Amino acid sequence: MKKILLASTILAGTAGFAAADNANFTFSGEAYMGIAASWNWDEAVGQDIDGDGVTGEADVTRFTPEVTAEFSAAMMTTTDGGLEAGTKITVETRGLSMEDDHTDGGFGTVTADSAATVSRAEVWLSGDWGKFTMEYEGVSAGNPEFGDVDFEYAHSFGDFSIEAWYEYRWGPDNDDYGLEGKYSFGDYAVWLGYEHQEAVNDYEAWVGASAALNGFSGEVEATYVSVADDWDFYAEANYTIDAFTFGAFIEDDGTDDDWDYGVNASYDLGGGVSVDGAYIFDNDATVDGVSMAKVGVAMKF
Amino acid sequence: MKKILLASTILAGTAGFAAADNANFTFSGEAYMGIAASWNWDEAVGQDIDGDGVTGEADVTRFTPEVTAEFSAAMMTTTDGGLEAGTKITVETRGLSMEDDHTDGGFGTVTADSAATVSRAEVWLSGDWGKFTMEYEGVSAGNPEFGDVDFEYAHSFGDFSIEAWYEYRWGPDNDDYGLEGKYSFGDYAVWLGYEHQEAVNDYEAWVGASAALNGFSGEVEATYVSVADDWDFYAEANYTIDAFTFGAFIEDDGTDDDWDYGVNASYDLGGGVSVDGAYIFDNDATVDGVSMAKVGVAMKF
Amino acid sequence: MKKILLASTILAGTAGFAAADNANFTFSGEAYMGIAASWNWDEAVGQDIDGDGVTGEADVTRFTPEVTAEFSAAMMTTTDGGLEAGTKITVETRGLSMEDDHTDGGFGTVTADSAATVSRAEVWLSGDWGKFTMEYEGVSAGNPEFGDVDFEYAHSFGDFSIEAWYEYRWGPDNDDYGLEGKYSFGDYAVWLGYEHQEAVNDYEAWVGASAALNGFSGEVEATYVSVADDWDFYAEANYTIDAFTFGAFIEDDGTDDDWDYGVNASYDLGGGVSVDGAYIFDNDATVDGVSMAKVGVAMKF
Repeated sequence: MKKILLASTILAGTAGFAAADNANFTFSGEAYMGIAASWNWDEAVGQDIDGDGVTGEADVTRFTPEVTAEFSAAMMTTTDGGLEAGTKITVETRGLSMEDDHTDGGFGTVTADSAATVSRAEVWLSGDWGKFTMEYEGVSAGNPEFGDVDFEYAHSFGDFSIEAWYEYRWGPDNDDYGLEGKYSFGDYAVWLGYEHQEAVNDYEAWVGASAALNGFSGEVEATYVSVADDWDFYAEANYTIDAFTFGAFIEDDGTDDDWDYGVNASYDLGGGVSVDGAYIFDNDATVDGVSMAKVGVAMKF
Repeated sequence: MKKILLASTILAGTAGFAAADNANFTFSGEAYMGIAASWNWDEAVGQDIDGDGVTGEADVTRFTPEVTAEFSAAMMTTTDGGLEAGTKITVETRGLSMEDDHTDGGFGTVTADSAATVSRAEVWLSGDWGKFTMEYEGVSAGNPEFGDVDFEYAHSFGDFSIEAWYEYRWGPDNDDYGLEGKYSFGDYAVWLGYEHQEAVNDYEAWVGASAALNGFSGEVEATYVSVADDWDFYAEANYTIDAFTFGAFIEDDGTDDDWDYGVNASYDLGGGVSVDGAYIFDNDATVDGVSMAKVGVAMKF
Repeated sequence: MKKILLASTILAGTAGFAAADNANFTFSGEAYMGIAASWNWDEAVGQDIDGDGVTGEADVTRFTPEVTAEFSAAMMTTTDGGLEAGTKITVETRGLSMEDDHTDGGFGTVTADSAATVSRAEVWLSGDWGKFTMEYEGVSAGNPEFGDVDFEYAHSFGDFSIEAWYEYRWGPDNDDYGLEGKYSFGDYAVWLGYEHQEAVNDYEAWVGASAALNGFSGEVEATYVSVADDWDFYAEANYTIDAFTFGAFIEDDGTDDDWDYGVNASYDLGGGVSVDGAYIFDNDATVDGVSMAKVGVAMKF
């Protein structure tokens, strides 16, 4: 095949006059090492969750070391008119971790990565009028040729800020869109949000409040899911004294009205390094719920 | 397994005495957000191209938001004798885009990336004698164990420049090799190229010219594909006035002697950011041809 | 789905107060271009190893161009108490190379990469007490949900240094752990190591020595593999004069008591660039052994 030395360049755009400038780049990174365990698991027939070579046991424990690292390059440029434009790319190493998000169906299970992960495209424009972001959300479940994209708009007016979003999903009648407003006054803030979900032709709405003073911070939120006629609640408190931070949360997520909860403690070594420990109980996982504990060293660069 | 603390280091090379120096690195990046659509598609039985939930329709439109971002690290070092050596690595986020190259068989279709992309290895050496590049071209179609590599040589002598290439393909009698010479005089340039293709034991040859003056630029090229006894033509013109650039192209690619064409407009916001719009018609795609339009914001960092 | 604006942040840790600082980052890179061949291969029925279009031949040669490149970002921060913490991420381009490690079962075969590679997570802490590292070793063979992790500890006391490791493998009775001590005196060093391997409930032990003076360097090592009642030997010598380095090695790896060997030569161009050539013979591969030769340009950035 003839080399395309002069391919149709018409679509290449004319943005090209900003020579690559290392000053447009801000690097950051994170790393973690530790251990984690979750318990209350029942092995299916032939299944060996705890790696003891015995299958089909009741009430066993998953254990794993955890080690992860990632590198991010944030890029930002400013137009002649003062608009800021940017994006950020994160490369994650192959690593090992236990899911610690109790709202995730995989809570307490282990993810061993055999392939690299690079973040999804997230591109933004920002000016006096606010900040507009487009974010790729992955291949569409309805048709893997197409993909889903979130459109987000955020703006602040003094103590008041709003965020609006439109989540575009390929396919008919399956987009979500919503609005959240927040009012901050001194050490306190309150917010109110609403989202319409086309797939169920119904809505969610939520209200929350936070406070931060004298080393203490806390927040509470209540959400009403109309299609399920269900209320969810979340509350969190943290207390920082010297290098220590202690925290606790409680949450009823999903329609089961069961409470998940957790506690954590962290010791800040300075320079972006801390020793962190946590215990979380997820009532939604398995019949009896699953407990998880983890301890490790977190680093930010 | 015993840890290999002292593995056979014989092949590690002795190039190692250049301590990593951040000055050897030049970073760059690109990002894009916008929307695109292509039309004149007929859905097959059971196929839903436009996502309206109805299959098997005639004359439907593909629509997609587009969002992409990439980060590049270019590396360069200089030997004691003044040779320059370098490479460049690009990491692309997972993103969403519509193919806008009308010479590509997938013109007008959507690519939703579910995995990361890192560029292929491209390594070069450069000196008084010119520039030599080796570039990996991917797994060989004939045998996925092996891969294909391009060897390229380029050099300039005053107003005259040449480029020669050898495209190595694993397997018998399937390599390509060619030569192009270019003469530039003031605002004008003319070029002449030739490539032999072993797979068909025949050649392609081409001649072109370009001009750039008073904000106007244009180029034309004609290619003769001997094995098909076919002439291809390409012409492009661009006009820049203040922050605006307007462009148009017309091309007969392939043996059909049908014309593809497009127009575009771009507004340069400065700082590497522009607003771009384009319309392209590809006569080669489907029976009636496919039209595509796109508009978005392009960023270079 | 409602946007999680206030997700359970309890586990996010409090390490976050070190703003991303580009001074925490040290970049490095490597690139290589050259050619390689290995011979003494017999093609199976229907197999075409040398790409000449003829299958089932005896005594054929694998040939490939080689081109590879990689980029690394090393990150390091220091705690208030003087601990150093860090990690390093390497992104490798898709590339093409021939395996030149004669201890690898794939010696002399070609790897054509069709996907990106990012390094595995390796995270370390270092202080007066030594250096502790956790390194992800990939998906566990016993259960791909889980992964394997190496724990390493290294410390130096004047001329004496030790390294201890525990290689955690998911599953019962399959971990390895060991210790190596090394004593360095002037231009000489000697070392002694031991590793217990649970999977075979047996051990390996090794002893070695090295010297480096007047441009000459050499090292020898002998290893006893108890479970096989087998001794392995390795010896290597290098001589550097001006920009040239010449080397040779000989090794009996595995239980066959056959010798593998190789020679290499390298010319240092300065600035991290060298021209390298090598010949290696692997007695363990195929019935008659496999020979490999390679020459190329190596670059470090």
